[in-house]
Amino acid sequence: MEKVRDLVREGKRVAKEDPRRVVHSFKVGLVLSLVSSFYYYQPLYDSFGVNAMWAVMTVVVVFEFSVGATLGKGLNRVAATLFAGALGIGAHHLASLSGSTGEPILLAIFVFIQAALSTFVRFFPRVKARYDYSLLIFILTFALISVSGFREEQVLVLTHKRISTVIIGGLSCVLISIFVCPVWAGQDLHSLLASNVEKLSFFLLGISSNYHTRFRIVIFIIKKNKCWRLAEFGDKYCETVKDGDTKEVDKRKNDFDNYKSVLNSKSNEESLANFAKWEPGHGQFRFRHPWKQYLIIGGLIRQCAYRIDALNSYLNADIQVSIDIRKKLEEPLRRMSLESGKAMKEMSVSLTKMIKPSSSDLHVRNAQSACKSLTSLLHSGILKEVESQELISLLTAISLLIDIINLTENILESLHE
Amino acid sequence: MEKVRDLVREGKRVAKEDPRRVVHSFKVGLVLSLVSSFYYYQPLYDSFGVNAMWAVMTVVVVFEFSVGATLGKGLNRVAATLFAGALGIGAHHLASLSGSTGEPILLAIFVFIQAALSTFVRFFPRVKARYDYSLLIFILTFALISVSGFREEQVLVLTHKRISTVIIGGLSCVLISIFVCPVWAGQDLHSLLASNVEKLSFFLLGISSNYHTRFRIVIFIIKKNKCWRLAEFGDKYCETVKDGDTKEVDKRKNDFDNYKSVLNSKSNEESLANFAKWEPGHGQFRFRHPWKQYLIIGGLIRQCAYRIDALNSYLNADIQVSIDIRKKLEEPLRRMSLESGKAMKEMSVSLTKMIKPSSSDLHVRNAQSACKSLTSLLHSGILKEVESQELISLLTAISLLIDIINLTENILESLHE
Repeated sequence: MEKVRDLVREGKRVAKEDPRRVVHSFKVGLVLSLVSSFYYYQPLYDSFGVNAMWAVMTVVVVFEFSVGATLGKGLNRVAATLFAGALGIGAHHLASLSGSTGEPILLAIFVFIQAALSTFVRFFPRVKARYDYSLLIFILTFALISVSGFREEQVLVLTHKRISTVIIGGLSCVLISIFVCPVWAGQDLHSLLASNVEKLSFFLLGISSNYHTRFRIVIFIIKKNKCWRLAEFGDKYCETVKDGDTKEVDKRKNDFDNYKSVLNSKSNEESLANFAKWEPGHGQFRFRHPWKQYLIIGGLIRQCAYRIDALNSYLNADIQVSIDIRKKLEEPLRRMSLESGKAMKEMSVSLTKMIKPSSSDLHVRNAQSACKSLTSLLHSGILKEVESQELISLLTAISLLIDIINLTENILESLHE
Repeated sequence: MEKVRDLVREGKRVAKEDPRRVVHSFKVGLVLSLVSSFYYYQPLYDSFGVNAMWAVMTVVVVFEFSVGATLGKGLNRVAATLFAGALGIGAHHLASLSGSTGEPILLAIFVFIQAALSTFVRFFPRVKARYDYSLLIFILTFALISVSGFREEQVLVLTHKRISTVIIGGLSCVLISIFVCPVWAGQDLHSLLASNVEKLSFFLLGISSNYHTRFRIVIFIIKKNKCWRLAEFGDKYCETVKDGDTKEVDKRKNDFDNYKSVLNSKSNEESLANFAKWEPGHGQFRFRHPWKQYLIIGGLIRQCAYRIDALNSYLNADIQVSIDIRKKLEEPLRRMSLESGKAMKEMSVSLTKMIKPSSSDLHVRNAQSACKSLTSLLHSGILKEVESQELISLLTAISLLIDIINLTENILESLHE
């Protein structure tokens, strides 16, 4: 009973996270019942017979979440079926020339060679990335057609039926996925980048907040009184939370740790870009939208996340510096993280709205000028008195922050392109 | 013509990278020709008829590279087919009670509900990770059996044939993959970790080499005269290379950059661990080997790689420090990277041989003592005169190196567990 309730709760969460999933499930159900009407409707059944099953199979296997993935798989499947069908007929013809004893042996050899060769080609990295599914269907169709041809004399009819049912199944998937509440992989990739940038901005805005409360440099504020401080995190977190409200604090801490999901977003981005290449123009995206550029920007964002991860490990270190020095360092450090965070936030918003980031340049320049004033502050030799161990941690955090600002600039530049 | 030659060269490379790929291709060809003998051999054909096709399909879809993946897919497929078959028969029976007009409508509704529900469940993260394929087959079999039951009266016979051919196909895949040159995902995961640790050790040994040639601190040696220096990289690279031999230099530079592949190894490790869970005991691995522990160690290794990536960006920075200071810093820095590199190397070797790392502890202790002497050197205030910008870069590199040593210790500890 408890398990069922867990399952329902999990289901609600999954649906709430992305309501398009529910719509997608309905779409699959719809297409599948449509296509299985082949069996019910007499004229259709008369012309396809048991082969109508291929249409059902195609729907189940081809219908993916996004338009790009469905289109890619559908085209792959149809092309592979066509090609393997032709080859299978050829093999069957060739084998039948060798008489009734030779035929099965020759067919087995053909199947062996074709399967071994195609399986090997699937290991090629470039093939694996885009045509893995094609080759699977190629092996399958070739084996089925060349071998079942041995029994059924009408191998041409069989192939024709198989190909047309596959096309019918594939086409219905593609049409429904494009015209009924489409989910575009390109749009998803675009939003993924925007949300990744936003996650980084949360972190940077987080560490730049509440600078005014005590004489501490910003990079140490996380450690002490975690709950209370996190309550004042970022712009939209300025309302204070009651001391006992651990749920709210947890939620905000989560927001703060969100950047960690960016560290491993590479494979997700790559598959989305792969799907997006198949998609026709939609919304503000043209057919040949520069999806590769997205991967480059994604890589830069990830690099920035690596630095933030390193910086985060210093935030938890307990560093003792005199109040005097803290006071002086506080202002430029706060401005550096605040301005770079604002620049990121602005970029994320402009990515979402697909407009040019208007004030990001300004924020980056502000961050850089804060950098300069920090450097000249350090030049003036205020750190001469600091213990070496503290110095290492402090300067590392500073240098990581500088890195982050430079990367922010890089990301902004590639956005402009 | 040029393209064909490229293809052949690519094929040779793929085969050389992992010769088991060639063996796997042969295995697939073998099983497929075996299973298609259903069609040739009269008694078998008499009992299964066209349904023998399901065996062929099962082989093509289920036979994966590693034993774990094949077993997992095979079990998933058989279980899903059994379950969906039973449910399909039930649905068919229920629908047939409602007369010939009601039946197709009721069946369509059943298919719709089942497909929509299963598709939705596939979005659950835990289901997606392990049972995605099960659900696909579940939808497929249910649709095929409940719907084709509408035509063929012998729905029980059909289901029985489908299930037994799927079991035959799945079983031949599993048997061949276990008993003919098996590829164990668990073994692969183990080797992957070992090679990842080795890649990191290459980097660390690389930056610690040729410290004696000039008065430069180790962290700057890469920038100047790239080729010549990389030629002396690490233990096994001590032979010098002729100036013109750019190929050899490129190869060694590649070795040095190898650590970058560790940064994105997460998804690979996770899928291998997922497959390994299905595998029976083999070699030195028991059935319930703690594969989760591997993921933890993999995570630590990746964290270390993030630090190394950050460190690498400082190696290329041009830092000016007086010869006097360099001289003093050189020895502890060199020892830090050398000893941590040796510890890593030792760990990788002991992982490969599956023995306890004997001297890694010693190397880590040496690295830590070098750390201490460096810290006390910095305490003595030798950096008072250094420009602040240089200081930042220098100290960041030092602190990253300290981080790396600490992580090395963590990895070693989790290896002991």
